[in-house]
Amino acid sequence: MCGIVAISGIDRAAEHAYLGLYALQHRGQEAAGISTVAADGQAHLHKAHGLVVEGFRDETLRQLPGDLALGHSRYSTAGGAGLVNTQPIVVRYHAGDLALVHNGNLTNAGTLRDELVRAGALFQTTVDTEVIVHLIARSRAGSADEQVLEALGQLTGAFSVLITVGRTLYAARDPWGFRPLIMGRKKNGYVFASESCALDLIGAHGRYSIAPGEVLKIEDGRLERLPALRGAEHAAPCIFELVYFARPDSRLWDVAVDRARRAFGRQLAREHPAPADCVFSVPDSSNSAALGYSEESGIPLELGLIRNHYVGRTFIHPTQHGRDLGVRIKYNAVREVIQGQSVIVTDDSLARGTTSAGLISLIREAGAREIHFRVASPPVTHPCYYGIDMPTKEELIGARLSVEQIRRHLKVDTLGYLSLAGMHAAVAEHGPFCDACFSGHYPSPLVDLKYGHLAGRDRADS
Amino acid sequence: MCGIVAISGIDRAAEHAYLGLYALQHRGQEAAGISTVAADGQAHLHKAHGLVVEGFRDETLRQLPGDLALGHSRYSTAGGAGLVNTQPIVVRYHAGDLALVHNGNLTNAGTLRDELVRAGALFQTTVDTEVIVHLIARSRAGSADEQVLEALGQLTGAFSVLITVGRTLYAARDPWGFRPLIMGRKKNGYVFASESCALDLIGAHGRYSIAPGEVLKIEDGRLERLPALRGAEHAAPCIFELVYFARPDSRLWDVAVDRARRAFGRQLAREHPAPADCVFSVPDSSNSAALGYSEESGIPLELGLIRNHYVGRTFIHPTQHGRDLGVRIKYNAVREVIQGQSVIVTDDSLARGTTSAGLISLIREAGAREIHFRVASPPVTHPCYYGIDMPTKEELIGARLSVEQIRRHLKVDTLGYLSLAGMHAAVAEHGPFCDACFSGHYPSPLVDLKYGHLAGRDRADS
Amino acid sequence: MCGIVAISGIDRAAEHAYLGLYALQHRGQEAAGISTVAADGQAHLHKAHGLVVEGFRDETLRQLPGDLALGHSRYSTAGGAGLVNTQPIVVRYHAGDLALVHNGNLTNAGTLRDELVRAGALFQTTVDTEVIVHLIARSRAGSADEQVLEALGQLTGAFSVLITVGRTLYAARDPWGFRPLIMGRKKNGYVFASESCALDLIGAHGRYSIAPGEVLKIEDGRLERLPALRGAEHAAPCIFELVYFARPDSRLWDVAVDRARRAFGRQLAREHPAPADCVFSVPDSSNSAALGYSEESGIPLELGLIRNHYVGRTFIHPTQHGRDLGVRIKYNAVREVIQGQSVIVTDDSLARGTTSAGLISLIREAGAREIHFRVASPPVTHPCYYGIDMPTKEELIGARLSVEQIRRHLKVDTLGYLSLAGMHAAVAEHGPFCDACFSGHYPSPLVDLKYGHLAGRDRADS
Amino acid sequence: MCGIVAISGIDRAAEHAYLGLYALQHRGQEAAGISTVAADGQAHLHKAHGLVVEGFRDETLRQLPGDLALGHSRYSTAGGAGLVNTQPIVVRYHAGDLALVHNGNLTNAGTLRDELVRAGALFQTTVDTEVIVHLIARSRAGSADEQVLEALGQLTGAFSVLITVGRTLYAARDPWGFRPLIMGRKKNGYVFASESCALDLIGAHGRYSIAPGEVLKIEDGRLERLPALRGAEHAAPCIFELVYFARPDSRLWDVAVDRARRAFGRQLAREHPAPADCVFSVPDSSNSAALGYSEESGIPLELGLIRNHYVGRTFIHPTQHGRDLGVRIKYNAVREVIQGQSVIVTDDSLARGTTSAGLISLIREAGAREIHFRVASPPVTHPCYYGIDMPTKEELIGARLSVEQIRRHLKVDTLGYLSLAGMHAAVAEHGPFCDACFSGHYPSPLVDLKYGHLAGRDRADS
Repeated sequence: MCGIVAISGIDRAAEHAYLGLYALQHRGQEAAGISTVAADGQAHLHKAHGLVVEGFRDETLRQLPGDLALGHSRYSTAGGAGLVNTQPIVVRYHAGDLALVHNGNLTNAGTLRDELVRAGALFQTTVDTEVIVHLIARSRAGSADEQVLEALGQLTGAFSVLITVGRTLYAARDPWGFRPLIMGRKKNGYVFASESCALDLIGAHGRYSIAPGEVLKIEDGRLERLPALRGAEHAAPCIFELVYFARPDSRLWDVAVDRARRAFGRQLAREHPAPADCVFSVPDSSNSAALGYSEESGIPLELGLIRNHYVGRTFIHPTQHGRDLGVRIKYNAVREVIQGQSVIVTDDSLARGTTSAGLISLIREAGAREIHFRVASPPVTHPCYYGIDMPTKEELIGARLSVEQIRRHLKVDTLGYLSLAGMHAAVAEHGPFCDACFSGHYPSPLVDLKYGHLAGRDRADS
Repeated sequence: MCGIVAISGIDRAAEHAYLGLYALQHRGQEAAGISTVAADGQAHLHKAHGLVVEGFRDETLRQLPGDLALGHSRYSTAGGAGLVNTQPIVVRYHAGDLALVHNGNLTNAGTLRDELVRAGALFQTTVDTEVIVHLIARSRAGSADEQVLEALGQLTGAFSVLITVGRTLYAARDPWGFRPLIMGRKKNGYVFASESCALDLIGAHGRYSIAPGEVLKIEDGRLERLPALRGAEHAAPCIFELVYFARPDSRLWDVAVDRARRAFGRQLAREHPAPADCVFSVPDSSNSAALGYSEESGIPLELGLIRNHYVGRTFIHPTQHGRDLGVRIKYNAVREVIQGQSVIVTDDSLARGTTSAGLISLIREAGAREIHFRVASPPVTHPCYYGIDMPTKEELIGARLSVEQIRRHLKVDTLGYLSLAGMHAAVAEHGPFCDACFSGHYPSPLVDLKYGHLAGRDRADS
Repeated sequence: MCGIVAISGIDRAAEHAYLGLYALQHRGQEAAGISTVAADGQAHLHKAHGLVVEGFRDETLRQLPGDLALGHSRYSTAGGAGLVNTQPIVVRYHAGDLALVHNGNLTNAGTLRDELVRAGALFQTTVDTEVIVHLIARSRAGSADEQVLEALGQLTGAFSVLITVGRTLYAARDPWGFRPLIMGRKKNGYVFASESCALDLIGAHGRYSIAPGEVLKIEDGRLERLPALRGAEHAAPCIFELVYFARPDSRLWDVAVDRARRAFGRQLAREHPAPADCVFSVPDSSNSAALGYSEESGIPLELGLIRNHYVGRTFIHPTQHGRDLGVRIKYNAVREVIQGQSVIVTDDSLARGTTSAGLISLIREAGAREIHFRVASPPVTHPCYYGIDMPTKEELIGARLSVEQIRRHLKVDTLGYLSLAGMHAAVAEHGPFCDACFSGHYPSPLVDLKYGHLAGRDRADS
Repeated sequence: MCGIVAISGIDRAAEHAYLGLYALQHRGQEAAGISTVAADGQAHLHKAHGLVVEGFRDETLRQLPGDLALGHSRYSTAGGAGLVNTQPIVVRYHAGDLALVHNGNLTNAGTLRDELVRAGALFQTTVDTEVIVHLIARSRAGSADEQVLEALGQLTGAFSVLITVGRTLYAARDPWGFRPLIMGRKKNGYVFASESCALDLIGAHGRYSIAPGEVLKIEDGRLERLPALRGAEHAAPCIFELVYFARPDSRLWDVAVDRARRAFGRQLAREHPAPADCVFSVPDSSNSAALGYSEESGIPLELGLIRNHYVGRTFIHPTQHGRDLGVRIKYNAVREVIQGQSVIVTDDSLARGTTSAGLISLIREAGAREIHFRVASPPVTHPCYYGIDMPTKEELIGARLSVEQIRRHLKVDTLGYLSLAGMHAAVAEHGPFCDACFSGHYPSPLVDLKYGHLAGRDRADS
C-alpha cells in the first residue's frame, strides 16, 4: 500500500505535501518522494528511503519550489528496493514535465507493458505505475486531457492517481473505487490525500470523496470535472481499509473509520459472546473494536497489553531469547489485569497468525485463566490483487486451516471471527464493498493472471 | 530521569542489558551505555547518542563480553551533551575496574565535589554521579564492601545505583527510596532494573523491590545483604513515577502502575464529576486514568484523540503553519466522537500547560460543545531536586496561576485537578510517598541549595 | 570527464569493475555505478555518490552477481546532481535488459532528443547519454547488432561506449576517436577500460587500443568485429588526455602518457630556456614535464613544492585566512630549496590561472629571487564540446589575455608556453590529435550549437 | 605517533588549531581533538574519530570559543580505540580547567600509575598521558607553574607537551628532546606545533625549536622561560623523524627534512653504487633520497612508480585477486620506464618488508632486467619505546635476517642499506640523535620495562 497527496495553488506546496505524507506514514514506511512544479512548469523531485522525517530536511524542502506538489509514501519492497522504483515518477515528454503518484495495483500492467515494449518503449522501473506514464506519453490524442483519459481508460485494477502535466493537476479513481482519495480546500488552493487525517494536519477543510471513475482537473485555480471512467458494474471500495489499513481518525467514502470498527466490534459481540471478566485490545489496531465489544456485551474494558513506543527497524535479535521475542519487544502483558482472569482479546484481522500466537503465549504467561480470542473480520483466505500487500495463499492461516484448527493452533479456549454477512451488515449503509480477500470474489478482471503475467504480490508496489 | 539495569551471572550479559534498556527507553532517549565485565575482571564499555536501537548493533554487543553487565539510558541533556557525561562511568582504581550507573539526583554533589577537588581529585564530567566514583576510590576502608558503604553513606538526595567492582555487583537505593529498583532471577543469574517491564522482556521471574537504604551484593553467584544506609525519617518513593513516569505495565514498590493510575482516575471522578456525553484520554499517558474515570462515573469511554506512531525527533516545522503544529503532528482529534458533544478529557498531569492548550484547541475545532478538563494529579508547583526533569518554577503554570486562571488560559468549560489528599488516599496502602513537586515538602536535605551550589535542574542528569 | 570499464566472461565481474573504477577514480569523483548481468540475462545495478570506495561495500558487490559488468565514474555535476543522472543507465526494452556507460560528449544530443520526444519517448534524465539508449530501443532493425550500429551511426561528437544487451557486450569509439578505450584479456575473459592503468590493477594483459569508429561485440566468449562507424575525415584523439587528464602510468592509443609529457617538457626547454638554479614541478601533474625540462636543459631538478595527501572535499575555510588558503591546504613550498634562488616552475596547462597565481605567491614568500613559469602546453583558448569540463570562455585566462598580460597577472619574471607546433611535434608519430581547446578547430560538427541547443558545458556529463 | 598544536592569543584559535592539525595529519589519522579556553577560563572540547576534515565542521569550530587552543591528531590504536583515549585530556581540578596534549611515549608511566592508583587516583583512560594530568592535580606545590614543573620532573621517556591551566599555556620538551616542538608568532599571538609545516599553513612566522628540557609559559601575551627539566646526559632527538616520519617541507631542530633525506641519499650512493640505467623512488616517502642518489651517482632519475591519490581506508579486498593487491591499489609501475632496464629503487627504511616485497614483484612484472634495492637508513632492529609505532621485534625483518637473507627474501639483484655511521655522518652538524631503533641503544631509562610493566607498543598512543 501507499499514501498519496497533492497540493495545488498553495505557496510552499512541498511543505504541505510533507505534512500530508507525515500523516499518511502508516500507509508506507519504505520510502517517500515529493515532486513540485514551479511557476515555469519545470518539475523538481526528491526521493529518499525510510520515513518522511528521515528523508526530508528543511533544505530539501526549500529546493522544491512552487505551489503545485505531489507526494508519495511507499510500503512494499516488491519491485526491488532501489529508489528508481519509488514515486513520484517524473519524466519529460512532448507536452512538458509529467509527474505521477499512484495508490493501488493494476491487474493488466504486464499485458500493457508487453505491448509498449514491443513498440520501443524503455522501462526504467519494475513498478506497474510506469505503464500509465508511457500510455500518456504515447497517446496520439490532441490535448493533455484526452491523453490522460485515454491512458486511464485502458487500465484495469486499482488506481487512485494524482498527475501533474506542466502546471495542470489531474486526480482520478478507478471505476471500482478500490482505494480512497479525498479532496479538501485550503484558502484558494486544493488538497488531495488518501485519507482525511492528512487534510486535518495540513489544515484543509471540506472532505469530498472523489467518486469511483471520477476524473478531476485543476488548472489556474479552477476545478473541472472530466468525463468519468467506465467499466465497473458497481463500486467496490476496499473493506480492508476499514478493517485495518486506514487510521481510526480518518473518514473514507464518508465512513468514519473509528465508527466502522466500533460497529464491527459490536456485531462481533453479538455473534460471539463469551462469559469473561474483561475484554481488551491488541493496541492500537483493535482499540475501536474492543471498545465496541465492551459496549455491546457490557463486559468491562481493560488495558491488558501495552505497546512499546520505541519499536525500531534495527532491533537486534539476541540469540538466547525465545522465538516470541519479536512480539515481546513490541508488546507487554499487564499481569495485574490478566492474572487469574477469563479474558476476551480482540484483534482486527488474522493473516499469518504468528503475531497472535506470540501474544497469546504472552497473555498465558501473565496468568490468564481463559482466553477468548475474537477477530473483528472474517478469515483472510485469498490474496489481494488490488494493492494490499497480503501474505501468499500458502501463508494465510485462514486459507489452510478451519476455525477449529486455528483455535487449537493458537491455543485459545474459544475463537470467534466476525461473519462475512455480519461485517457487511455493520457498514451496510456505505456499501457495497470489495471483500475479495475474505470471499475470493474479484470485481475487476485479473487480466495479467489470465495471460500468465505475474500479478498480485510481485508488482504490488503502490 | 534515567533507566538503569544490571545483569549478573548470565551469559551474554550485554544482550540482556540491551533488552532491559530497550524496555526502559521511556526513561531516557538521549543516550545509552552498556559496560560489561569479562571473566578476567576487565571492564568493557560502549556508549552512544540516541535510542538504544540506534547506538547498539550486533557487533557492538559481541565486543562486550562477559556475564556481568550494567546499562544506562539517559534523559537529560543537562551537564552537557557530550558522551563523556553519559553512563556507565568506568574507571580503573586500586581495587580494579569500577563501573557505575545511577538513577536519581544527589542534593549534596556540589559540596562533595568541592571537597574532593581540593584534595586533588580530577573530574572529567559535569554529572553528579562522578562524585560517587571518587568517594569510593578515595576511601581508606580496607575492603571494596566498606568503600562502597562509606561512599554511599555520605550522599543525600536520590540514588538508585548499580556498581561493579571487578566481578562483584552492588545494588543500592538511597534511604528515602526515591527511585525504584527491582530485582528478578533468570536461571542462576540476577537481573536488576528500574522497572519490572524490563524484567518481563529479559524473561526474568520474581519481582523483589529493593528496600529504601538496602545495599545488596552479588559475588560468585551468592546474594548478600550489607548493612543498610540510614538517615531517612521515613521512606519517600516518588509518587510522580506512578502519576506519569513509569510504564503502565510495570510494578514499582509492589504497586501496579496501571492500578494506581486507575485509582487516581476513579478518585478524580469522585472529586470532579461532570455531566458529559463521554470521557477520553490523551493517549497513551492517561489511558488508565480515563478508564478509571469512566468506570467510576459511568460515563462512556471514547477514543477521541489518536496518537501518531511515527513522531520523530527530526520533524521540520514549516513556517506557514500555526503555533499548535507541535501538538498536531503528535495527535489528531476524531471528529465523529467529538462533534456537538460535551466531553471530559483526562490528562495525567500539567506542567507547562502548552501541550494541553494545543490539544484543547484541536478538540474545540473538532466541534466539542463543552470541554471538561480533568487532571489526574494536583497542580505541579515546585521543582524536583531528586531527578525528575521538571521545568523551572517560572515555567510551571501551577506555580504561577490559580486553578480558575488556568481554566481561563486553557479555555475549557471546567477544570478539575485531583486533590493532594485524594492522590495519597488512592494509593494509601503503599505510602507514604514523596510529593515535593506538588507540595514543596522535600524529605531529603537540599545541601547544595543551602550552600549556594547549583542544584536541581542543572545537574539533573540521571 | 568520466571513466568507464567493462568485464566479460570473468567470475565476480563486479569486483573487477570495482578495481577498474578505483584505478580510474581521477577521471570522475562525483559518483560511481556498476551494473552486472547474471546468467539469466537480468541486469543488476548499484549507483552511489562520491568515491567508488565510499559507495561500494563488500555486500554491495555481492548483490551484483554475474560474469558481465559495466562500471562508470562520473566527474561533472552538470545535468543535475541526482543519482538518476549517473550511469550505467539500465532499461528494459524488447530485446531484454540494456545497460550503457558513456565517456565523452555528444554534439547532436539536443537535436536527437527533440525528435525522440516528439515521437513519444520519455526521458528520465538530463544527460545526453540517454539519447543513445532511446535510439537503440526505437530502432526497427531486426537484430540487436543492427540496432546498436544504427543508433551509434546517428551520433556526432565524442563517445567511447560500453553496452550490454542481455548477455552480449558491445564496445565502440566514435569515428574521430576522441576518448580512449583499451582492451585486455584476463584468462578467457575480456576487460575494457578508459586507460591501461585499470587493466594493470585488474591484472589483465594485452593493451589493444580500440580504433576510431571500431565496434566490437563479445558473445559467448567470442570476439567479433562489426562494421565500423564512419563520418570522420581523420582520427582526432584528444591531446588534452596526454597533457593533463590521463594517469602518467597509462598507455592510450599506444602512447605512454609519461613519455608524452616528458617530450612536452623537453620541447618546452628548447623553446623557453631560462638561466635558473633549479627546476621543479607542481606535483604530481607536471612531474614528468619537469623531469623532461631538467633533462634537456641540464638544470638540476628539485622538490620545491610538497602536496598534502589528505586533501578532502569537506575542508572548512576559516574566515580569517587569506585568499590563497585553497592553494595552501594543498601545497606547501620548501623554503630550503627556494630561498634566494632563481627557479623554473613547470605546470601542465593553464585554464583559469587561479591555482597558479596562488602557487607563485607561495613560492615568492618562500624567498625565490626569480620565478620562470613554464607551461607544458599552449594557452587554453576555447571550450571543449567533446567531454573535457573546461571553464567557460570568459573564465579562460588564455582567451582573455596575451601571454605578456598573463605574465604580469601571475607576477612572474618570465612566462613560457609550449607552442602548438611544438606540442604536436613532440608526439608527432602518434598523431594527428584534436587540439580544439588550444586552436578552436573542432573536427566533429557542433550540431546542437548550430541549432541553438545548449551544448558544451551544460551537458558535459560524461 | 601524534601531532600536537597550540594557539595562544589569536582570535578563533580553534580554526587555527584545525589548520595546524590538517598540516600534521600525516602524524596521526585515527582521531583528532581540539580544546579551547574561553575568556572566562572554561575549557571546551571536541574529539572525533578519523581525519580532522571528517570530524570537524564549521559549526563544531564555532562551538569552541576563545583565543587559546590545543589540538591533537592521534595515530596509534593502542590503548583501545574509544574516544575516551584520545586527546586533549580535559579535566577540572582545584586550579581550574586543565587540558593537555602529548606527543611521545613515557617509559615510567606504568610505575607512576601504580603509585597514583594506590593513592586513590581514578584513571579513565589507558593512555600514559593521563599520568601527567594526575601528577599535576596531586602536586602540593603552591602555584600552577610549580605543579607543572614538579609533574614533568618525574617523567622519563619522550614527551613534547602543551598544557593549558585556566588561561595559561605551558609548552615543554623532555630533557632528551626526542620529539620535535616548534614555536612561531602570528601578530601578537603564539603558535606551537610538532613541525614547521603547520606554522606555514597557519601563516605564522619564526621557527624557534624548543630546546630539550625547556619549559615555556605564556600568560597574558607574555612569554616566560621556566627552569629547565634535567636528567639527560645529552640531547637525543629522534633520527627516524628525519628518515621517515616528518614531512619533507618541515624543519625540525633547525634541520630541513628534505635536505637531510637528500644527504642520506647521497651517502647511500657513495656506500652502495650500482651500474644501473636509472634510479627511482617509492613515492612520496623516498623522493628526496632518490634525488640525492641520482645527483651523487649521475644516474638519471626516473618516475618508475605512480601512487594512487584516492587510497582510502575502506577499500574492499576482493577474494580472487593476488596477495599483492594491498600494494597494487596504492602503486602502479610505469612499464615504459622499467621494461628491459637495470633499475635502482630507493626506499626510506625497511621495517616488516612486506610492502617492499610487493613493490619489487610489481617492478619485476613490468620487465625490469635488474633490480638494485637501496634503503636510505640502516636495518631497523629494535622496538621504539619513545613513541614511534614500530612492529614487534619478531616482525622486524632486520632483527631476524641478515642483509643477504633479506636480499634473497626480496628477490632483488643487490641490496644496500645506509650504514649507521653513514647516516650519522650525513646529519653530523645537527647531532647527536637517538638511533635506538637501529642500534638498540636507549638514551632514557626504560623504567617500566625493568619493573615488568608493559611498555613500548602497548601504551605507545601518543
